[in-house]
Amino acid sequence: MPAGDTESVELWSVAERLADAAREETLRHFRALHLTTESKSEHFDPVTIADRNAESSMRAILGELRPEDGILGEEFEPKHGVSGLTWVLDPIDGTRGFISGTPTWGVLIALADGDGPILGLIDQPYIGERFMGGRGRAVLEGPQGSRPLNASETTSLADATLFTTFPEVGTLAEAAAFRRVSSKVQLTRYGCDCYAYALLAVGQIDLVIEAGLKAYDIQAPIAVIEAAGGIVSDWEGEPAHDGGRVLAAATPELHEAALELIA
Amino acid sequence: MPAGDTESVELWSVAERLADAAREETLRHFRALHLTTESKSEHFDPVTIADRNAESSMRAILGELRPEDGILGEEFEPKHGVSGLTWVLDPIDGTRGFISGTPTWGVLIALADGDGPILGLIDQPYIGERFMGGRGRAVLEGPQGSRPLNASETTSLADATLFTTFPEVGTLAEAAAFRRVSSKVQLTRYGCDCYAYALLAVGQIDLVIEAGLKAYDIQAPIAVIEAAGGIVSDWEGEPAHDGGRVLAAATPELHEAALELIA
Repeated sequence: MPAGDTESVELWSVAERLADAAREETLRHFRALHLTTESKSEHFDPVTIADRNAESSMRAILGELRPEDGILGEEFEPKHGVSGLTWVLDPIDGTRGFISGTPTWGVLIALADGDGPILGLIDQPYIGERFMGGRGRAVLEGPQGSRPLNASETTSLADATLFTTFPEVGTLAEAAAFRRVSSKVQLTRYGCDCYAYALLAVGQIDLVIEAGLKAYDIQAPIAVIEAAGGIVSDWEGEPAHDGGRVLAAATPELHEAALELIA
Repeated sequence: MPAGDTESVELWSVAERLADAAREETLRHFRALHLTTESKSEHFDPVTIADRNAESSMRAILGELRPEDGILGEEFEPKHGVSGLTWVLDPIDGTRGFISGTPTWGVLIALADGDGPILGLIDQPYIGERFMGGRGRAVLEGPQGSRPLNASETTSLADATLFTTFPEVGTLAEAAAFRRVSSKVQLTRYGCDCYAYALLAVGQIDLVIEAGLKAYDIQAPIAVIEAAGGIVSDWEGEPAHDGGRVLAAATPELHEAALELIA
């Protein structure tokens, strides 16, 4: 059970019900043959049936349990609420990974007030891992049991492991900024989508740099990483909960060092 | 139980005992804090305690059950056998992924005769997935149960998903050859080490291109992919079981199309 007040317990209960529903809908289609996809843009950005069904399922639960809250999701139009709280949903973050069969896509669920996310959850249904942060919680529940989320204590770029979805994502200028950081770190790894933020929250890696994100791509990671003691901002050091260019770091020292190179 | 003759059943039993032992030794250290690493070369190529303990554990089992077979492993000196069979062991393929916490490293176990691997196994301990091919078996056993291994039927580069560990691995000429293929495919993804070969065997992706491999990096993937109906060769179309530059493809058509671009 989560620590915290009655309202936090209630909000976490809803968040986990959403994640359970999305887990069921996404797993039904993960690694299924002949997955129907369509292109949302000129780049390869498939949307699967699983993506839509999972969001529909989560919206139905919210309609029942939290009718006064707003909803911002990847797949359907925003729903405006009256409570001042908004559920921010990305049913499958990493659709390219999903379609490739890689177990590093995730379900992203956040709850935001007017200042940004107050709790967030990154779920990896195939592995059965759930990273949860905010409102009394900072925990990974997975196949090896529970462990607290704790960002690493790495303060120097030379000791840091950096993750990104580059080289596939971003403008030339963004890629160049990324390489200025990449050239200074111990290890750079590619292609983990939201799972990279989860690895930062669990203390395994130290930096994530991305560009071109939407609000629903980053709000859950922000809550999870902040609960783990890490820092998330945009490339100017400002709040990143509206998406765009994102820098996540395990410590203030690392955040500042990376920010100097990409700003 | 595997199909096949008594000898195959016996060999698979040994292979699975090795994988069980390696699973225990690697999981003991996966995502543990303060993992001790050392550099094997000027590039960042950490060797973990887990790597050595897992290979020692597998060698002890072979010493007991298969004393006449040879052993070729990543961590210790080769053992010459008298049976004509050699166990080829990579206790942690993807040590950089292991240290980053990514669940896409694997334990690779193959059994080879004078002509190459006759059976192979790719194990992902954290997820609990085991991909097995050769000597009567072509199966994935994992958290969602068992499913047969079947490479995709993709014949055209334009429809193909390509995996690699580039851009980090390879010479400039190798990277250029890789990009000639990458520019023709639908989707390129990075950074999955041996897990990419497993995804090819389960029909999720269509091509893997790598360079700089050792025999113990590729013999298990060869057996798994061939059992799934796919093709593995070097960049000249010759057998790849000694390592080096590797091209794995789901179909003969795709293999030929990629070979023309990289050869």
